[in-house]
Amino acid sequence: MTDTRLDVLAIGNAIVDVIAAADEDFIEREGLIKGGMQLIDAERAEELYSRMGPGREISGGSAANTVAGAAALGARCAFVGQIADDQLGAVFAHDIRAHGVRFDTPARAGDPPTGRVLILVTPCGERTMNTLLGASHFLPSESLDHDLIRDSAILYLEGYLWDPEQPRAVMRQAIDIARAAGRKVALTLSVNFIIERHRADLQGLIDQGLIDILFVNEEELICLTQDDDRESALAKVSAKVPLLVVTLGADGALAIQNGQRFTVAAEPVERVVDTTGAGDLFAAGFLAGISRGRGVEDCLKMGAIAAAEVISHYGARPEADLKALVAQKLG
Amino acid sequence: MTDTRLDVLAIGNAIVDVIAAADEDFIEREGLIKGGMQLIDAERAEELYSRMGPGREISGGSAANTVAGAAALGARCAFVGQIADDQLGAVFAHDIRAHGVRFDTPARAGDPPTGRVLILVTPCGERTMNTLLGASHFLPSESLDHDLIRDSAILYLEGYLWDPEQPRAVMRQAIDIARAAGRKVALTLSVNFIIERHRADLQGLIDQGLIDILFVNEEELICLTQDDDRESALAKVSAKVPLLVVTLGADGALAIQNGQRFTVAAEPVERVVDTTGAGDLFAAGFLAGISRGRGVEDCLKMGAIAAAEVISHYGARPEADLKALVAQKLG
Repeated sequence: MTDTRLDVLAIGNAIVDVIAAADEDFIEREGLIKGGMQLIDAERAEELYSRMGPGREISGGSAANTVAGAAALGARCAFVGQIADDQLGAVFAHDIRAHGVRFDTPARAGDPPTGRVLILVTPCGERTMNTLLGASHFLPSESLDHDLIRDSAILYLEGYLWDPEQPRAVMRQAIDIARAAGRKVALTLSVNFIIERHRADLQGLIDQGLIDILFVNEEELICLTQDDDRESALAKVSAKVPLLVVTLGADGALAIQNGQRFTVAAEPVERVVDTTGAGDLFAAGFLAGISRGRGVEDCLKMGAIAAAEVISHYGARPEADLKALVAQKLG
Repeated sequence: MTDTRLDVLAIGNAIVDVIAAADEDFIEREGLIKGGMQLIDAERAEELYSRMGPGREISGGSAANTVAGAAALGARCAFVGQIADDQLGAVFAHDIRAHGVRFDTPARAGDPPTGRVLILVTPCGERTMNTLLGASHFLPSESLDHDLIRDSAILYLEGYLWDPEQPRAVMRQAIDIARAAGRKVALTLSVNFIIERHRADLQGLIDQGLIDILFVNEEELICLTQDDDRESALAKVSAKVPLLVVTLGADGALAIQNGQRFTVAAEPVERVVDTTGAGDLFAAGFLAGISRGRGVEDCLKMGAIAAAEVISHYGARPEADLKALVAQKLG
């Protein structure tokens, strides 16, 4: 479809998920907001870890999950994110490369360690995330390969990484490089607290027309527009963004492109085990569709298929053969 | 049932499993023996890891899996094994404690790192294990709490750890302490190459009547006795061991106690995802049954239930509520 070397280059948190089952009581006792994501410091991480159940360590990070999924669907992807020179960093680097994603960001020596998210999964599969960003905070501008950005059809950015100063500057720089080369810029807003803290900045990017594709869920759409009427919120954002994609949880998703609306139902799932990564994998399917030259309707369907796969098991990286699933369901 | 502080104290490898799906071609290309376990060095581990797929890190170690399962079934357990002072060591320590198992062995500073097993799971759920023992090799005799051994109804030892000199000496010492206190000693033979390398030593323990409960699978029974007639092999070993437990894979298991034979069928499993830990969890259920004063028939059934749970998901530690499963199936 494109004549670039890569389809998607993503910048995001380089993080390993530590996933444990938990009951509702535990969430309440620890004062956590079920279904939410909060940043925690090392001391709180230690404390919470000591009290939570046995874990599975599976590589994560929102944008990293997205390129892992997009690569599984045949897109040519690269990831930029900061790991530390430690065992969890080695796990992250191995896994993303094993998913077929190019990853060249050198590990950072010394403290802090590689970031991790303590994820508590309650009985209906809902995840509550407690994030220690660690080394992810310290992404230097040297981590950007300008030529590679110019040679990637889509630059994909993760809102979670908008908080720390250094990575935010790196992402702003990457936007300039990509746009100067005529590439598309995609952004996922990730979570409400990021929108609240960086509203002017993020809204500014959108208003200036720097974002070609925007991924949000319904809560983030409302938070961004401060308008709880879905239709009017959609109208406001889609007037500024050429391609707006809104995930709606169990209600599927919709996209608005140049005033035209497309919808998709959620793919049926036998049992929702762990919703971690649902949005990330939706974006993966959608972006992989774009990179294969598919229409918006097919892109939505590919997003729904990839999201359904990832919520049917623990962890936010695809396990099944996504290409085969798409071929079977979409042809 | 017993008046000891603990039901089971286990000594074994302190190891984290790195589990990835692999196809049959990969196993062949890498020259691995499907379904087997081999020890690898750091260089080979690096090489194999770089080529295998994305992993899940889940705490493992044969005897550690067994006490994690037995604790889940209500047994009071402790584990002794050597981790390094690194991130994987912290993961191992957290997980085993989170399973409710007492774990006091201090982490060892410096190289080698915490042991790990690269586990390749082929489509029908069969696992091929590649083990880098790492710090597990360096278990010092100071790691034994003599009082705690005397106060544990069963000392449980893992054959895998018979190879390195230091842990072997520690286990021999633990046997003496346990027997002097009138406690029972249980041993799992783990794998054929251990039996072959240490035949005289292991057979000696059995012949001297130092092993009260012996866990083997059918291959290990044949390897130990060098007799491929199952009945005559059973007769030879059961003459020396008060309680012999033989797992038979999909054919269930049998036990011989003082000449009396008991059998159990395998529990049906909807889909075998990963057979890692099947034997370990069989032993877990069996030992938990003993600690609860159950008869051999019930112990076998509890072993079958625990083994069926662990092969229905990735990883060798229980995920479901084993107590509830046993209550439901056994009452």
